[in-house]
Amino acid sequence: MPTFKITLAYDGTGFVGWQRQAAGFSIQGLLEGALHGLDQREVVVTGAGRTDAGVHALGQVASFTLQRDISGETLVRAVNARLPEAVRVLTAEQMPAAFHARFAATRKLYRYRIWNADVLNPFERPYVWHVPGSLDVGAMRIAAEAIAGRHDFSAFQAAGSAIRSPEREVFSSHLDTLGPLASFEIAGNGFLRHMVRNIVGSLVEVGRGRRPPEWLGAVLDSRDRTRAGPTAPAHGLTLVSVEYPAQNGS
Amino acid sequence: MPTFKITLAYDGTGFVGWQRQAAGFSIQGLLEGALHGLDQREVVVTGAGRTDAGVHALGQVASFTLQRDISGETLVRAVNARLPEAVRVLTAEQMPAAFHARFAATRKLYRYRIWNADVLNPFERPYVWHVPGSLDVGAMRIAAEAIAGRHDFSAFQAAGSAIRSPEREVFSSHLDTLGPLASFEIAGNGFLRHMVRNIVGSLVEVGRGRRPPEWLGAVLDSRDRTRAGPTAPAHGLTLVSVEYPAQNGS
Repeated sequence: MPTFKITLAYDGTGFVGWQRQAAGFSIQGLLEGALHGLDQREVVVTGAGRTDAGVHALGQVASFTLQRDISGETLVRAVNARLPEAVRVLTAEQMPAAFHARFAATRKLYRYRIWNADVLNPFERPYVWHVPGSLDVGAMRIAAEAIAGRHDFSAFQAAGSAIRSPEREVFSSHLDTLGPLASFEIAGNGFLRHMVRNIVGSLVEVGRGRRPPEWLGAVLDSRDRTRAGPTAPAHGLTLVSVEYPAQNGS
Repeated sequence: MPTFKITLAYDGTGFVGWQRQAAGFSIQGLLEGALHGLDQREVVVTGAGRTDAGVHALGQVASFTLQRDISGETLVRAVNARLPEAVRVLTAEQMPAAFHARFAATRKLYRYRIWNADVLNPFERPYVWHVPGSLDVGAMRIAAEAIAGRHDFSAFQAAGSAIRSPEREVFSSHLDTLGPLASFEIAGNGFLRHMVRNIVGSLVEVGRGRRPPEWLGAVLDSRDRTRAGPTAPAHGLTLVSVEYPAQNGS
């Protein structure tokens, strides 16, 4: 009964997100279907980050236990053969039975991409939020830095979320630009639902000059969801990587 | 009656190619439809490169003449508003009436991208030829260089093409790799139908070790289409840029 850790990349366009839903194709559901074909029994797959509909992943991590004893390499090939091309397992390795992709994760990195030019590059269309008009990137950069640290992130939580603790630690929060592309990278020990997209929506309010850079920190301190900017669209967001403690010989 | 030169980018996925066809959406047809809406008369658009179905463009150039006198900036905005998001006009400028996007072009640059790894990155899927298994990139690089120069390229012409002269000058022909991505760039004064894709198909024969690097030059010298490798798939190809002589104050 080997437990596996897999890393996977997916183009989230057209999927209902990570989690199984009543209708539509989810990444979890597609993986479970592929593993069912392989293991001849129901397999439950746990993802490190429950990405929303339309959100992409370059390095999502998932865990599950199989009855069959197969190598990581064979697993990669067999699962990919049963998945649509928009979802690819990159690596697979056996782990101690206790490994849990979500609970064991110590650091997640998300990237949000904004295309700031009048004309949107057609190749970037599914992977960026198109924000035409001028953006004060310097002000956005200052505001982005204010998010780092351990905070109660209630102000940036999806409306109606019920979660045990809204406290999270953000290790780093930076905005970089390259030509018309503004890329916001945020790393933390965990993220509330819509947290990254709500932060980005608020950063764009600052970039448009509707709010000063200090406003973002004030919204954070208020813990009041009604004060933050609108939620940025899902398709600009990518789960880049998930990290785990070193295995200590296990 | 201003004549315009426009540059445009498009994701060729799902289009029937540059040229108007009896069925399906072509880039030329979409542009002509958009300009008809703008100019209230039939407008004929000439493209620098008649890209095949599925081929992409980062810097295609086209020319046409309008009845309306409008600025380049207004034209970009008005035409983009009438085009699908997968096709974007990047720039527009008025030119002397004699300007012809195809006949005046002096240099075109094409890029062909090959993904050489067992697992295909899902984001690259529509923009690369997935070639798993080992490729001798060193041998391909040597073979690629042999294409440069002025030659009769009949051996790499689409079967059944009838063209006045199969002679073209290739200014440069290089293969570069970055991780699993092999990128072939070829610049020349013009290209025969399927020429780049036939060269790439032959380069991959060399990479797979089925032919030695010298073979590509021998195929070229033979002028015999039946000797070259298979035609590489269209969706790995992108028309990167088209150049024109300096305008000499016109």
